Amino acid sequence: MATQGQVITCKAAVAWEPNKPLTIEDVQVAPPQANEVRIQILYTALCHTDAYTWSGKDPEGLFPCILGHEAAGIVESVGEGVTDVKPGDHVIPCYQAECGECKFCKSGKTNLCGKVRAATGVGVMMADRQSRFSINGKPIYHFMGTSTFSQYTVVHDVSVAKIQPDAPLDKVCLLGCGVPTGLGAVWNTAKVEPGSIVAIFGLGTVGLAVAEGAKTAGASRIIGIDIDNNKFDTAKSFGVTEFINPKDHDKPIQQVISDLTDGGVDYSFECIGNVSVMRSALECCHKGWGTSVIVGVAASGQEISTRPFQLVTGRVWKGTAFGGFKSRSQVPWLVEKYMKKEIKVDEYITHNLTLAEINNAFDLMHDGKCLRCVLAMHE
Amino acid sequence: MATQGQVITCKAAVAWEPNKPLTIEDVQVAPPQANEVRIQILYTALCHTDAYTWSGKDPEGLFPCILGHEAAGIVESVGEGVTDVKPGDHVIPCYQAECGECKFCKSGKTNLCGKVRAATGVGVMMADRQSRFSINGKPIYHFMGTSTFSQYTVVHDVSVAKIQPDAPLDKVCLLGCGVPTGLGAVWNTAKVEPGSIVAIFGLGTVGLAVAEGAKTAGASRIIGIDIDNNKFDTAKSFGVTEFINPKDHDKPIQQVISDLTDGGVDYSFECIGNVSVMRSALECCHKGWGTSVIVGVAASGQEISTRPFQLVTGRVWKGTAFGGFKSRSQVPWLVEKYMKKEIKVDEYITHNLTLAEINNAFDLMHDGKCLRCVLAMHE
Repeated sequence: MATQGQVITCKAAVAWEPNKPLTIEDVQVAPPQANEVRIQILYTALCHTDAYTWSGKDPEGLFPCILGHEAAGIVESVGEGVTDVKPGDHVIPCYQAECGECKFCKSGKTNLCGKVRAATGVGVMMADRQSRFSINGKPIYHFMGTSTFSQYTVVHDVSVAKIQPDAPLDKVCLLGCGVPTGLGAVWNTAKVEPGSIVAIFGLGTVGLAVAEGAKTAGASRIIGIDIDNNKFDTAKSFGVTEFINPKDHDKPIQQVISDLTDGGVDYSFECIGNVSVMRSALECCHKGWGTSVIVGVAASGQEISTRPFQLVTGRVWKGTAFGGFKSRSQVPWLVEKYMKKEIKVDEYITHNLTLAEINNAFDLMHDGKCLRCVLAMHE
Repeated sequence: MATQGQVITCKAAVAWEPNKPLTIEDVQVAPPQANEVRIQILYTALCHTDAYTWSGKDPEGLFPCILGHEAAGIVESVGEGVTDVKPGDHVIPCYQAECGECKFCKSGKTNLCGKVRAATGVGVMMADRQSRFSINGKPIYHFMGTSTFSQYTVVHDVSVAKIQPDAPLDKVCLLGCGVPTGLGAVWNTAKVEPGSIVAIFGLGTVGLAVAEGAKTAGASRIIGIDIDNNKFDTAKSFGVTEFINPKDHDKPIQQVISDLTDGGVDYSFECIGNVSVMRSALECCHKGWGTSVIVGVAASGQEISTRPFQLVTGRVWKGTAFGGFKSRSQVPWLVEKYMKKEIKVDEYITHNLTLAEINNAFDLMHDGKCLRCVLAMHE
C-alpha cells in the first residue's frame, strides 16, 4: 500500500477538553510499531462510555483524546510480528484485548485480558508508551485502546478481531461493544436457563440486547423496567414480555417485582449505571438463587450497598464487562451469528450520520428515541 | 413411653429479657402435635447467633424464649403424621428445615426450605401458631425452630435429621450449625477447586471449618486473617498455611493480601459478621474470577458496600446459610463422614459444662480460647 510505513493525515473528532464540543481535525496517525495494527475505520457508533469520558466525570479521562470504541474497518498496515491479520482484512477493534497468554486469558474464567491494559488505561501504546496520534507534533491520547472517532487508528494486535469479509461494516460495527455486552451478560455471566424469569433495568441498546439474549435462552418472562413508557413497543420486539414503569408505583420497585413474580426473579440485569438501581436489581431477585448482574457502568466514586442478609439468603451479585466474551475469539462468531440472522443488529441502529455530524450524534444519545447512531467515517 | 402424650416438666435455660443472665427454670413442654417431634436434648453447644439474640441486638428476638440451635438428642415422642422418625431415634434438630416439597426444596438450587419459616421466625409452631413451652401457663417462645437449651424441645418434623445411633451425641451436636456452615461454604457455595488460593477472615469455629473444607478441597494456600495471634497455632492444625494479623499492617488488608497473592485470592470467606470486613473480603479477591462468600451474620441494619467496578471486573459476591447443606438429607452424611474420620468435630470442642453452667458458657464465648462449649443437659 502507498500509505504503509508512512504517517497518514486524516480526519478525526478530537475531544480537546471535557464537555466541549468535539472538533474535526486533521490528525497525523503514525505507522504501527511492533505488534500494532493500523486500521481504516469505516463506521463507528457512539456509546455512553464515550459520553461519560467526554463529560469529564471519568477521573481517568485524559485530554486531548480521540474517543470511540464501537466500530469496524479494514486493516491498512501492520507492524512487525503481527501474524493474525494482514492489510485488507475486515476487522472490529476491541477495547477488551485477548492475548491468549496472560494469567487472565489462561484462567479459563474471564475475558479480562491484562496484556495491554497498563498502556490503554493511560491513553498510549505499549511499545514506547507514546501515542500514535498527533496534531502538528502535539500528541493526542488514545482512548480504550481503540479511538475509533478517527478515519485511521492504531491498536494493539491483541485488540483486533478479524471478521468475515462479506459482513456489512456499517452494521457489525455494533458488535464492538453494546450488543455483545447485553447478550453475553445473559449467556456467559448469568447463564440464564430455559423457563427463567428475568428483569431488565434500563431498555437502551444494552438492555434490549439482554432481552434478546434472554429470549434466545428460553426465559419464560422478561420484565423490562424503564421510566420511559415509549420504550415498551421497541422492547417488545426484542423479547420483553412485561413492562414496569417505576413512576407508576409508590412501593419500591423491588417490592413491585417481587409481588408480581411470587418472590422475585431468577435473574436481573442493571443496564443503566445507577447504583441505587443496582440495589433494586439485586433485591428483586428470588431468595435462594436469584442472581443479579451489573452491566451498566456507574460514575466514579459511587458505591453499591445492600444488607448482607440479601446474599446470605442466597442471592448472588455479579458484574460483566463486554458480556464476558473473549474478544478476538468470539466477536467473529457473533458476526457469523448475525450473518445467519440468529441475532439482531440492524434493529439497534436508529440513526446514521457522518463524522462531521458527531456532535449531533452525541446530542441524539440523550434522546430516548435513539438507540445507536452509526457514523460513516469517509463521507 | 410413659411420657408420651403428656406434658413434660424439665429444666431449661430461659432468656427472660435481653442481656440478663439466663435462669434455669422448670418448664412445661407440651406433647408434639401433628407433624411435630418432641426430642430429649442430651447435648447442646452454644453459637454466636444465640448470643446475638440474647444481647437484644436482634430486632426479631422475642422474649421470654429458650435459645439454642446446635444440639443432639433422642426422639421422645412424635405427633400424628410423623413417619421419618420414631421414639428412640438419635437426631440432630435443624434450624434450617427441609420439607422436600416447597418451591425452595424443589428448585435444586438452595437449601433454604420455606415450609415452617413463617412460624419459626416468630417463635411458635405451625399447627396452632402457639408455643409448646410454658411456665405455669405463661408461654415461652421457641427460637430458630429448635430451642435446644431445654432438656426437652418440640420441633417440626421437617427440622429433624435422623442420624446413626452409634455416633457420640456429645460430639456430633456440633453438626447442627457451625461446622457444616464452614465446610458447606467451601464445598457447596464457593465450590473451591484444587490449587485455589483461599482467604478466611475470622478463625473461630466457622472459620476453622472453612479452613478444613478448603484443605480437603485441595486449596494450595489457605490464608487466615485474625486480630488474635494466638489463633494461629490452632488454625494451622485445621489447614491454614499463612497467617495475617491486620494490626501488623498499615495498608488496607485487601491490599496486603493482593500483594501477597499476585493480584488477589480465588476465594474468600467472611466468618465474623462485620460489614467492613465483608468489603475487605470481596476486594481481596482476584479480578476476573475471585468469589467472596459471606458466612458471618452481621448485626441488623448494617449494610455492605463496594464500588460496582469490583463486580464489573469479575468478582462475585455471595453468601451462605448452613453452608448450603440440605439439613435432613445431608446432616446424616456429615455424621457418617465424622464417624469415618473424614471430618474433624472433636477438635472444635474446647470446653464441656452442664446446663446449670450455661451463663459461664456464654462468658467463655467471648474468650478467644473457646471454640465450642458443649453442655451436658442431664448432669
